[in-house]
Amino acid sequence: MSLTLIRRPPGLQFGGVDVRQLADRAGHTPFFAYDRSAIDARIRELRRLLPSGMHLHYSIKANPMPAVVHYLAGRVDGFDVASAQEMAIALDAGTTPAAIGFAGPGKSHDDLRRAVASGVNVHVESETQLRLVTALGWELGVQPSVAIRVNPDFQVGQSGMRMGGGAAPFGVDVGQVPALLRELEAREVALAGFHIFWGSQCLHAATVIEAQRQSVELVLRLASGLTGPPRFVNLGGGFGIPYFAGETPLDVKAVCEAMHDWLPRLGERLPGIVPILELGRYLVGEAGIYVCRVIDQKVSRGKTFVITDGGLHHHLAASGNFGQVLRRNFPVVIGNRPDGVTRERCHVVGCLCTPLDRLADDIELPEAHIGDFVVVRQSGAYGRSASPLHFLSHPEPVEMLV
Amino acid sequence: MSLTLIRRPPGLQFGGVDVRQLADRAGHTPFFAYDRSAIDARIRELRRLLPSGMHLHYSIKANPMPAVVHYLAGRVDGFDVASAQEMAIALDAGTTPAAIGFAGPGKSHDDLRRAVASGVNVHVESETQLRLVTALGWELGVQPSVAIRVNPDFQVGQSGMRMGGGAAPFGVDVGQVPALLRELEAREVALAGFHIFWGSQCLHAATVIEAQRQSVELVLRLASGLTGPPRFVNLGGGFGIPYFAGETPLDVKAVCEAMHDWLPRLGERLPGIVPILELGRYLVGEAGIYVCRVIDQKVSRGKTFVITDGGLHHHLAASGNFGQVLRRNFPVVIGNRPDGVTRERCHVVGCLCTPLDRLADDIELPEAHIGDFVVVRQSGAYGRSASPLHFLSHPEPVEMLV
Repeated sequence: MSLTLIRRPPGLQFGGVDVRQLADRAGHTPFFAYDRSAIDARIRELRRLLPSGMHLHYSIKANPMPAVVHYLAGRVDGFDVASAQEMAIALDAGTTPAAIGFAGPGKSHDDLRRAVASGVNVHVESETQLRLVTALGWELGVQPSVAIRVNPDFQVGQSGMRMGGGAAPFGVDVGQVPALLRELEAREVALAGFHIFWGSQCLHAATVIEAQRQSVELVLRLASGLTGPPRFVNLGGGFGIPYFAGETPLDVKAVCEAMHDWLPRLGERLPGIVPILELGRYLVGEAGIYVCRVIDQKVSRGKTFVITDGGLHHHLAASGNFGQVLRRNFPVVIGNRPDGVTRERCHVVGCLCTPLDRLADDIELPEAHIGDFVVVRQSGAYGRSASPLHFLSHPEPVEMLV
Repeated sequence: MSLTLIRRPPGLQFGGVDVRQLADRAGHTPFFAYDRSAIDARIRELRRLLPSGMHLHYSIKANPMPAVVHYLAGRVDGFDVASAQEMAIALDAGTTPAAIGFAGPGKSHDDLRRAVASGVNVHVESETQLRLVTALGWELGVQPSVAIRVNPDFQVGQSGMRMGGGAAPFGVDVGQVPALLRELEAREVALAGFHIFWGSQCLHAATVIEAQRQSVELVLRLASGLTGPPRFVNLGGGFGIPYFAGETPLDVKAVCEAMHDWLPRLGERLPGIVPILELGRYLVGEAGIYVCRVIDQKVSRGKTFVITDGGLHHHLAASGNFGQVLRRNFPVVIGNRPDGVTRERCHVVGCLCTPLDRLADDIELPEAHIGDFVVVRQSGAYGRSASPLHFLSHPEPVEMLV
């Protein structure tokens, strides 16, 4: 007697694998999966569009999973880190310290000591940081590599999250840069670079173009008094990805084309300077999914609730509680029946005992049953690492790079 | 030559200890400290006010630190848990399983199996859960203890966070209770109790009183068809604590006095039933502080930023990003100079590279210097465990029960 295999209806494919098979591989739900081919495709497309000479960095805070960082190490020109631990992950991936930038408004003494000892570029954001770094250089017997992070004097509209242009704890105001440059000179430390960060999660090409143009002008002004050009200028990133209905992807082609306007001018005025584009979410955000499972379903006062084993403890952003003013649904799919024809309006919630734990409000989905897989897309960035994993002491989600 | 000790100006005392000494004991900042004497005093005061016969439970989700749970084990009559891990902490503390209630809209098969095997009271919140629990009882050869969590048919105003009264994933609608009771009967499982949860973080005594009165009426209605009274009724908690300027503490005396009205009636109608008050935040929230240290200070466009080594990765609620619609400041103190006379308006921020990382906006404080301790009060509940500890990969905060 031969075994007859039953063919299941096709489920959502992710990284070339059925999402049910991924769940078996993870061993349990919920889990996050990141698709290396999608990350690779995104970088290839960017490389194709970016002018030669433009360096591409990955901002580890978007997704610090070591496997992701290692995978990216061979594909980007460097990393930007926001803590000593992120720095350690970048170094573990074999990155040369000169290709690592360490930014952050609140670097501790321990952070700075480790950064100076490791030889990474410290993006100082205050006079305090500058003094500490140079003192640590003396103490440790190494020449520190110091860049200055500048809070720009321009503000561009439509940015998802502005981090420059107003009063801010990030970087130093433009007017304070000359004093820092004098301080560096007095301490006989050469300036390694500038770092200009104007915002993040921007879907509007004209805004990104304008911000980059203004950033370049700012750098040219700031560098005008220097004896030699700095080694690099980090122009930030800010490229957004669409999360919600009605949002359209950033026109990256337009952004890259506009770079051709200012790049030659930058090279002429500051020969040898390396312009860096620093992207986090844009490289990995769309390459990730969060998968949980339907464990119950109930009707309360006429409304259908689909209850999963996931929730905000794993994916705070999808619950609408991470900096969002208005809660909107991340894109959600029933992984084992993405095209199910019997559809219903429902509320998809997590397993936690709090009304904050919502994964999709009032959404039309293929009718869900216990055991079904709920897949939240656009979950490759600021997912697991940006969530309160211990809230209510449930098991942590697995992460896989597939 | 004798050593002259320099007397420091007095710092904030917490649990009878100077906050600077606590920091030395913790070994580093940031840290959370919980004051056992404050927890004890709160419970004593409650016990003094509560009618005899009223049981007091601690809801572990508010603060699951094992030392806190162990300390409370000798002081409350039982625990309410929201996950198998919380249940394990309660059992480790020596609590009898009959005094543990396990609630939650999304209990996994593993959760339920462990709960049934442990003999705790499972507060079923759907027909699915009820069937699973009774099936697991057969499988494991134990009689499960089953309570029904009811989504009440009343809604009270002014509750900080409503969790009952509307369409909700929590509990079962009142109208569905009879079907569950029949199902239990068919499976020859006695009903252990009811659990009615109407809201949380309420500072308005009249609302709590009304919710409790209506909960009792609801239980009397639901129990009218039963052959014998259930063992207990969990009436929820909902007692709030003041976080923000202008909020006044809940008048607990009034709430406890009102219990004398309905308690005799409950006892007459359902002889032997144990009414349970379930409190989390109210028992521990005001007994905790979060302490971080000033590591930098800067002026940006006329505004002063005090930058600490703490932040939203440790204390999401204090940053205003945990369910708050409007961001307001938690009470903040400069721990080593609480009464400093030179004061300044400033913004206290965390160390993270995100504009969400704010600990106090536009606040007047004693002028802060690098090395000063920033103390965030009202941090005993939903602090560390409700925060994205891995966000940006900084060190985790220590917790101490002092």
